[in-house]
Parts: sequence; C-alpha cells; structure tokens
Amino acid sequence: MSKVEDFQWKPERKVFGLVEDLGSSGFQGIELKKASDCFVKMKREGAKIYLTFTSNMATSGLRGFFAQLIKLGMANAVITTVGSVEEDIMKAIGEDFYIGRYYSDDVALHEKGTNRVGNLLIKNESYERFEAWIKSALEKLYQKKNRWPVVELLKEIGLMLKDENSILYQCSKNKVPIFCPAITDGAFGFHLFLFQQDHPDFMIDVVKDFADLIYISSHDDKKGIIALGGGVSKHHAILGTLLNGGAEYAVYMTTAHEHSGSLSGATTREAKSWGKIKDDADAVTVIGDVSVFFPMAMFAALDQLSKEGLLNG
Amino acid sequence: MSKVEDFQWKPERKVFGLVEDLGSSGFQGIELKKASDCFVKMKREGAKIYLTFTSNMATSGLRGFFAQLIKLGMANAVITTVGSVEEDIMKAIGEDFYIGRYYSDDVALHEKGTNRVGNLLIKNESYERFEAWIKSALEKLYQKKNRWPVVELLKEIGLMLKDENSILYQCSKNKVPIFCPAITDGAFGFHLFLFQQDHPDFMIDVVKDFADLIYISSHDDKKGIIALGGGVSKHHAILGTLLNGGAEYAVYMTTAHEHSGSLSGATTREAKSWGKIKDDADAVTVIGDVSVFFPMAMFAALDQLSKEGLLNG
Amino acid sequence: MSKVEDFQWKPERKVFGLVEDLGSSGFQGIELKKASDCFVKMKREGAKIYLTFTSNMATSGLRGFFAQLIKLGMANAVITTVGSVEEDIMKAIGEDFYIGRYYSDDVALHEKGTNRVGNLLIKNESYERFEAWIKSALEKLYQKKNRWPVVELLKEIGLMLKDENSILYQCSKNKVPIFCPAITDGAFGFHLFLFQQDHPDFMIDVVKDFADLIYISSHDDKKGIIALGGGVSKHHAILGTLLNGGAEYAVYMTTAHEHSGSLSGATTREAKSWGKIKDDADAVTVIGDVSVFFPMAMFAALDQLSKEGLLNG
Amino acid sequence: MSKVEDFQWKPERKVFGLVEDLGSSGFQGIELKKASDCFVKMKREGAKIYLTFTSNMATSGLRGFFAQLIKLGMANAVITTVGSVEEDIMKAIGEDFYIGRYYSDDVALHEKGTNRVGNLLIKNESYERFEAWIKSALEKLYQKKNRWPVVELLKEIGLMLKDENSILYQCSKNKVPIFCPAITDGAFGFHLFLFQQDHPDFMIDVVKDFADLIYISSHDDKKGIIALGGGVSKHHAILGTLLNGGAEYAVYMTTAHEHSGSLSGATTREAKSWGKIKDDADAVTVIGDVSVFFPMAMFAALDQLSKEGLLNG
Repeated sequence: MSKVEDFQWKPERKVFGLVEDLGSSGFQGIELKKASDCFVKMKREGAKIYLTFTSNMATSGLRGFFAQLIKLGMANAVITTVGSVEEDIMKAIGEDFYIGRYYSDDVALHEKGTNRVGNLLIKNESYERFEAWIKSALEKLYQKKNRWPVVELLKEIGLMLKDENSILYQCSKNKVPIFCPAITDGAFGFHLFLFQQDHPDFMIDVVKDFADLIYISSHDDKKGIIALGGGVSKHHAILGTLLNGGAEYAVYMTTAHEHSGSLSGATTREAKSWGKIKDDADAVTVIGDVSVFFPMAMFAALDQLSKEGLLNG
Repeated sequence: MSKVEDFQWKPERKVFGLVEDLGSSGFQGIELKKASDCFVKMKREGAKIYLTFTSNMATSGLRGFFAQLIKLGMANAVITTVGSVEEDIMKAIGEDFYIGRYYSDDVALHEKGTNRVGNLLIKNESYERFEAWIKSALEKLYQKKNRWPVVELLKEIGLMLKDENSILYQCSKNKVPIFCPAITDGAFGFHLFLFQQDHPDFMIDVVKDFADLIYISSHDDKKGIIALGGGVSKHHAILGTLLNGGAEYAVYMTTAHEHSGSLSGATTREAKSWGKIKDDADAVTVIGDVSVFFPMAMFAALDQLSKEGLLNG
Repeated sequence: MSKVEDFQWKPERKVFGLVEDLGSSGFQGIELKKASDCFVKMKREGAKIYLTFTSNMATSGLRGFFAQLIKLGMANAVITTVGSVEEDIMKAIGEDFYIGRYYSDDVALHEKGTNRVGNLLIKNESYERFEAWIKSALEKLYQKKNRWPVVELLKEIGLMLKDENSILYQCSKNKVPIFCPAITDGAFGFHLFLFQQDHPDFMIDVVKDFADLIYISSHDDKKGIIALGGGVSKHHAILGTLLNGGAEYAVYMTTAHEHSGSLSGATTREAKSWGKIKDDADAVTVIGDVSVFFPMAMFAALDQLSKEGLLNG
Repeated sequence: MSKVEDFQWKPERKVFGLVEDLGSSGFQGIELKKASDCFVKMKREGAKIYLTFTSNMATSGLRGFFAQLIKLGMANAVITTVGSVEEDIMKAIGEDFYIGRYYSDDVALHEKGTNRVGNLLIKNESYERFEAWIKSALEKLYQKKNRWPVVELLKEIGLMLKDENSILYQCSKNKVPIFCPAITDGAFGFHLFLFQQDHPDFMIDVVKDFADLIYISSHDDKKGIIALGGGVSKHHAILGTLLNGGAEYAVYMTTAHEHSGSLSGATTREAKSWGKIKDDADAVTVIGDVSVFFPMAMFAALDQLSKEGLLNG
C-alpha cells in the first residue's frame, strides 16, 4: 500500500508536478492522477483512442484543446453531439461566445437575443451565421452526391473550415472520423430538413456510419476510451469498443453519479459487466467538472508523452 | 407568502395527500408539488405534451407506467433513446429483467452473461432474443418499403407487439409518435447495419422525422414538456417546442446539476434565455431521482385529472 | 433474483402501495423500499434507534413529523445541530417560516430582514423573539445550577415548550435525550456567551454529555441508525453506536456522494470498515432529498408498524 | 462581456498558466479562476481570513498544505472538526495513512483493523497511538488548569507537536486560533470523557471560545472566508464573520448543492440574505472536489502573492 503524502506549494509549480502531488494526497486527486497515467498508457501502447465529449465542452474553450489533441494524435475517433458541430463551425467562421453568469435574468437575456449555456453565452447572430453557412455548404455537398453518411458529411465540412482550433478541421486534416449519432438534434437538423424539403432525394445515411464505427479498430487492436461527460456520445464510443471486444483502457470523467442508473453516471466497473471494457482493463472513473479536471490530467499526460516523443507533429 | 407547515403521518396516507403535505414543507418537496400541479395544468389546458425519458427508465418498472400514461392521453409525443426501444421490445416478447446491487462483482457478472444497469440486471439472452426478433421484423418492414423514417419504423414495430405495458405498443395504438434521434446507438443500430449490408438500398431517413417533430404542435397550440433525465431525449423535446414558439409548461426532473453547463443539467430558467420555454411559462426544475419523484408527482396529478374526467379511457 | 416489475397508477394510491411498487421497479426506488423495510425491522426487533438530522430539516415541515416520530417511539436518541434547536423553539413560541424560491434577489431579501434557507425564509423577527426567550430561559436554568450538560439543558428547555409539534418538547416528554454536539454554533451560542459574560461560573459541560451518548444503548442492545443528511449529527450518532459495538440496522439518506471522502457522503459500506455498523447489518444508503424520500419511506413503515401494534400511544 | 477563448496545451505548463486559461474557457473553470483571484484580493487587502475545512481533508495530503498556508499567513483563524485534530496529531507523532480504493471489501478491511475514508485508509494502530498520546497530554494540561476553552487546549497541544506539516503546530507557532466547535465528536471526545470520569472538575469551556471567535476580527476589519466543504466548520466561520458585520470576500468550495437546503450546499448568494457576507462582497461558489480544485486555485494565488511579497517568511 502506498502512503498518503502531505504536499506543499512550491513557487511556479508545473501542472504535472501538482498532478503528481495529488496522486498521493486523496479523493478525486488520486483518481485524476490515475486518469492522467491512463492517458499516457493508452497512447504508449498504441491503443485506438475514442475521444467523446458533450456539446457544452465545445461551447467552452476546451474546443481548441480538443482540436489540438486530434492534431497531436490523441484521438482515432471523435464522438460528440450535433451542438458541438454547430458551435465548432460558428467559431471557425468567426463568431465569438461570451462569459456570463449562472444566475442570470434569463428573460432579459432572451429579449437581447442571447442564449445561455451555464455561465457562457451565445448570441442569436451566431446561429444565424451558422445557418447561412450550412445552407450553402449543403448545396455544395449535394452537387457531389445525395446520400451522405454523417462521417463523410462532417469530413467534407471540416475541409471547408480553415481554422487550426476547429475540431472538425483537425479531424478532416488528420483523417480522424467524427461521429454524431443524433445529427438532426439541433439547428443543423432543421437545415437538413429544410434542404430535404427542396431536394427529396437528399438523404443522411446514419446506418452507413455504423460500418465506420466498427472499422476504427479491430479485435486485435488495443482500444482506449476517453469519455468526457455522458449521454449518447459516451454510449456510442463504448458501443464502438464493445463491438470489437471491449477496451483495454478507459477514463470516464463526469459529474453524473451511478445512483440514478443512467448511462451518463455509469462507472467503468459497471462497463465490465457488459464487456464494454475488458475485465482486466486499466480503467478509472473520475467524478468532477471536465472543464477543470480534463485539462489538468491531460496536460500532465502530454508532458510525459512529449518527452517520450509519442506526440505527432 | 405562504407558510411552512409542519406535517404528520396519518395512517394509510394517500400519495396525493403526502404530495400536498410536501408542498408546504420544504426543499425539493415544494418543487415536487409544483411539478405535480404543472402536470395537471398542462393537461387541463389541452397542451400538446412532449414526454421524454432516458433508457434506464425503460429498464426499470417505469416502463409500464409510461405505457399507461400514453394510454391515458398524457403524451402527444414520446422522445427517448434506442435503449428504451430495445428493452421495451425485450419485455414485450417475454424477457424479464432482474434486481441486483450497485456494488457488484462486475467481472463475475460478465462471466455469467449478465449486464448491469445501476441496481438492475439484463441477461445476454434477452439481447439475443431481441436480435432474432428485430432481424425478422426488419425483413417484414423491408417488404413494405426501403426508406423508413424512425417514427414510421417504430410505429410499425409497436403494432407488432401485443403488450399493454409496452411503450411502443401504446404509442402505436394511440397514434402518439415516438422519436428516437440516435436510432443507431445500440444493438438495434448494429442490426440495422447488418440488414443494410444485405440490402444496400435499405435506408433510415432521420431527416424526414424532423417534419413530424415540427408537426406535433403549432405556434397556436399550448405546449408542455415533461423531461425526465437528460441527454439527447431532453434536448430533442425542447427543440421540438422551440421550433413552435416555446413551451407554456415545463417540468425538468433530473439528478444533473447546472454547474457543468451540460444540457442534462440545464434548468427551466436557462431554457427561457433560448425561448425553449416561454418567458411566463409555468416551469419547474426538480432535482431528484426520477424513479421515485416522477411516480409520486404524477400519481397525485392523475388522481386530480381523473376526478376532472380528463383522462382517456 | 427477483424480477423488475412494471407498475401502474391506480386511483387514490396509498403511499405504502407506491413504496411497494418502487421496490421492484429500479434505482433509488429499490433502495427507498429497503430503507422502509429497515425502519420496520429496527423497531420490530426493539433496537435502540438513533435519529439524526440537520437543521435545514427542522426549518422545513419535517419538524412536526420528527416530533411525531419521537412521540410514536421511533427514536431513543435524537442528534442534531443547534440550528434545529433554535428553529424548533422559534416555531414553538409562535413564529412562522415562509416559502420562497431558490433563485431570489438575496440582497433585496437582506434589506427586508429575511434570511433564506434554500427555498424557505426566516424573518429576523423570529431570531429576535428566540433571543429574548432564550435569555429568559437561561436565567431560570441558572437558578437551578451553573454547570449544564447539553442533554440536560435541552431537556429543561423542552419542558418549557408546550407544543405537540416541537421536537424538544416531545423529547422531554418521552424521555428521549437530544444531543447537540456543537451547541455554540449559532445564535444560541452567542447568547450562552453573553450569559457567561455576566455569570462567569456558568458552564456548558459538553464532556459530560458523552456519558449519555454511551448509555443510550449497551453492547447487548440491538442498535439502529437513521441518519438524515450528514455532518456532525450523522457522525455523532455513528460514534454513539460504534462505542457500543456497532449498529445492527442503518439507513443513511443524503444527497452527498462518497467521492469527496466526506463523512456526509460516507456510505453504510464504508461504515463497516470502522465497525460503526456490524458486518452483517441490515444497512442501506439512499441517495435522495430527505424532504421527499424520508416521509415516503417512513409513512410506509409506520403503516406497517401500526398494524403490528408497535407504535406508542 | 469577455470572450470565451480556446486554449491549448503548452509543454511544462505552470499551474497559474492553466488557471489563467480556465478563466476564459467555461463552467467551473471560470469559477475556479474567480476563487483564485479572490484569494489574492483578500490577502492583498489585509482581510482577516477564516479558513475552514472538514476532517477528510486532514486525512488527505491537504493537511501539509493547510499547515503551509498558516505559516505563509493565509489564515487568521482555522475552523475544523475534531477528526482533523485527531488525524493531525496522528501524523505528527509518526503515523502514516494509506491509499486504498472506493470499492473495497469493507468487511475484510474491518477484520484487518483498517478504517476507510473514501479512497484512503487509517489503521486502528494509529488510533491507539493517538489515544495513548492524548491521554498523556491531558494529564499535563490538567496540571496547568482544570477549565479549558477549546482554542486554548488546541494551542497547547500544537506546541507539543514538533512537525512543520502539522496544522496544530503551525497554528500555535503563528498565533492563529483553531476552533473546533464539536470537540467531543470523536475519539478525542471519548478521552475527554474518560479523563473527566477520573477528574470530575475537568471542564471544556466551549462557551468561552465564543469570545475568541468574535475577537478574530472587528466590524472595521475586512474579512474573508475560505470555506472548503460544509458542515459545522463552514457554518462556524460564517457565524464568526456575521457577528462582525459580514465578510467582504468569500470562496465556498464544495461538492454539495443548494437544492437540499443544507448549509453545506448553501451558496454565497444565499449568505447575502443573512448578512453573512456583504451585499457587494467579492464572493464565489465553486462546485468541485476540494482535493483538486483548492490546491489548483490556491497555488495560482500564492504565485501571485509571492511576487507581490505578501506572504510570510
């Protein structure tokens, strides 16, 4: 058994130093350190990495960090919800989001055309610009063909964006498929619908995407899951690994708890009963706000992987 | 301002009596009572009701209660994830689920072919029977046509099930559309994929579903949201009402909190900034486990609606 | 293994019927049913029952229910924080508390002399009346003696209150000791301090209370814990049972989670490592808002105990 | 309104750099940055700082960090529970605690004499050594006098410990009072009781401590609260500032939520209704595990304060 160690502040402490301290301190700090180590191991062992996150994270500044991770080779597949796609595009075409407050006068915000996501704000104009852009993009894509799996559609869209901080752009550039199992669940869906009204043979072929989900990895590959938050994104990543025999590495990071029985709160232990992750997997469930916990754990991991020359570019 | 009232146990207390007590007691009891009242009002005012829940709830005994609610006319649209569809079918074709424990030996469960969902258990055999059934169902449906919106597909499937406790059956029987925006995110998706491998012209037309989502209600209709849990189901219901001018009534019931900025934890207050619900809507966010809070609040509401003769059948 | 059972609403359903339904439905409903059963068993087996709760519960209408439970013989010791004592007295001398909202303009409330406790409100006047009352009470008690253990002090105070809904009154009347390990942590403490300024030999002998904590039960007695919420109250009850060999029955009901390592979130499983509860105890941790979960579980238990003639009076 | 900024990993990133990034990213990262800034401001403005934490934090490696903060002048008063006192002494006399797992066989741990606190472990031997030590310490203190306020008692005990990492030692050395409002709620309490059995005139004078609580600061002083976790410790710190007109600065950091109405989850907004903190206070509620969030926010603050020459020693 390893000992609990008292730690102290040292001036200009580096993130990896603090993560090291936390690993022998207690509670979620210990789990955070395990998560950081697990990131290192999954990359070092050449695992196929499934990175999944919810759209609020793309609303936040994590978006640029996710784009960087894709560029560095830390994701072999990205799974997210359509809000991430929409907001990634908004930012890529020049829209800014703003910092607000959790306790706001939401009726006043509504009157000003400002939409709140926790303590962040998105203006209606950003949606309007997205809608104009996507309308035009769909026209171009329809010229090429009328039946689009989501993975292919998002790949083409990514290539239209010239923003190094864009998740879609980095996915396209680095040949990382991006999955969005509920592509219609947002403004994007509404525009797909309007487009189909005018072009009845226009189709989104979600079933076809399943092939790509299966072919990210094989039974022989090692597989790693980085599940940030819950919902369909988390489940889809797990489904992808389950179909190929289960993951060897998994980090679940979330504020949801297991007690409601939801998939969002389901732990890596529960995942073993399903074979979603292997019986002897290196797996850790961290309970905490991804906005803080994830960069901290991943910054420390990247420092290590960088030293070992395991990052792209 | 109304007063806090001390309450006491009375023998054989009825649920609506206890809910009444809680309404002047404190904390989530007060919000629960508001939720119960809101259910009554949305029905009394003839609002189009969007009922949304996550798949763990269909794993639980709430499934039969949801079926009953559809039958009683308490839902004009149902939105859920594909796990609900799968498990509703399993139960309808005779499979049983079991009660387990949160703290289980999950590796041992895996070896026994038992999958855990919180404190509930699903056997592999139930999945196997589902898979055989759905394979055969898809063959029959493909005879009719090759391009299926999800709403139509699930309607046909519902008609094949003869189980009064089935959500799909009651939806089909009562002409309530059931939406499942991420239809491929589960075993069902895998079988859609296998089927498409053999029948390349077989298509799921998720874009077409959007029309149905829009046509559930109009701008002129009053609209009510009952969002149980979070994720894509919750968002899709909200999207549906947003497109028609926002809801007049909304109950969000969840264990998720707003602090992570996720849609799952987003409150009815936040929804007002988006126009998802109207500025002056009767809206309440209840923080609590749906497995307990929802039947309690809804049982009390149904007793009232029953007295007023507002329930079907 | 028992099966998950679909349940349905029946008109005028009783609380014990719903609790029965939930017991075979899923998630916290199952744990709630176990809690209800555990309440029945601890009483049926004649266990010494340690009832503990936090002061916000005394702010709410649970206060009258707790008083009733003491009267019915459902508690052999009560452990709480000084806020409960203060607010029980305020209500007993005629003050009312009010229902407010979580999202309030707290600065405006402050200007109006209104203090918020979640969605409940306490006026400054209630504190002022409490302070006048306690000042006078301390004078009377000091006539009797100058060195008071908390248990004795609260017993005398209870006798001064003539309110059937008062926790202190029912404790005194039914010879149930009430413990308050941090008696100075509130307005009461401030008045003890002021009184001691004028009467330097006036003493609160908290150490002496420890004897009473030990003598509630013996090693030979069966012991049961009902811990509502966390903090010092919960810990003190557990400490009391630990000193006599650990509890045979325990229900922890809280919204706190184990992940922070706090005692508030500590589970009944963790308690076994300490011997706080026995290895083979009938123990259940329920995650949920006490304002709803507790009356529900306890109402069902009281119906059963009433039938068995096991309640006082 | 400030913009949301995408951020990226940079090699060997320092903690204050990451905290800076998070401040314009989103969600709890933003609140964490505000907390860090608030720590800087309260120190810069010469506020009297009330540092409060729960005992599980003293179990963890935060204990050494708290000791360092006291040494650096970041606390004018410390308020905690008796578990912190006990465990600080255990560590100071050479006992080690160990790292375990949340999901443990707690019955097996019990058989091995090992007690679990989340994912940390304390051996029975550590309690035995503490008990022998405290027994002897009480004998010595009783030679001096028989009536001890807790603050004085803990000051003397701190002087007996020669451990730079000890909270009690640093408090004593730096003349920082340490409050423990429920001193009897633990093994320490049991030994106070045993000692009083043999020395009936031995008294703990908790009422006398109230004077010290009041005299930490005056109405004219600026006051700052750093409340880590909840419970009696948090409440007592707030009570201390309330009595002197309310705090100008407050950081609440916790995993508890406001929805249960508990003091543990009470926000800095709610505190304003009471005058616990001033209407225009610089106040922030951060929802997150203290084991991670606090060192992160405070490390960044200390780097800044160190540059400004505002730290002791």
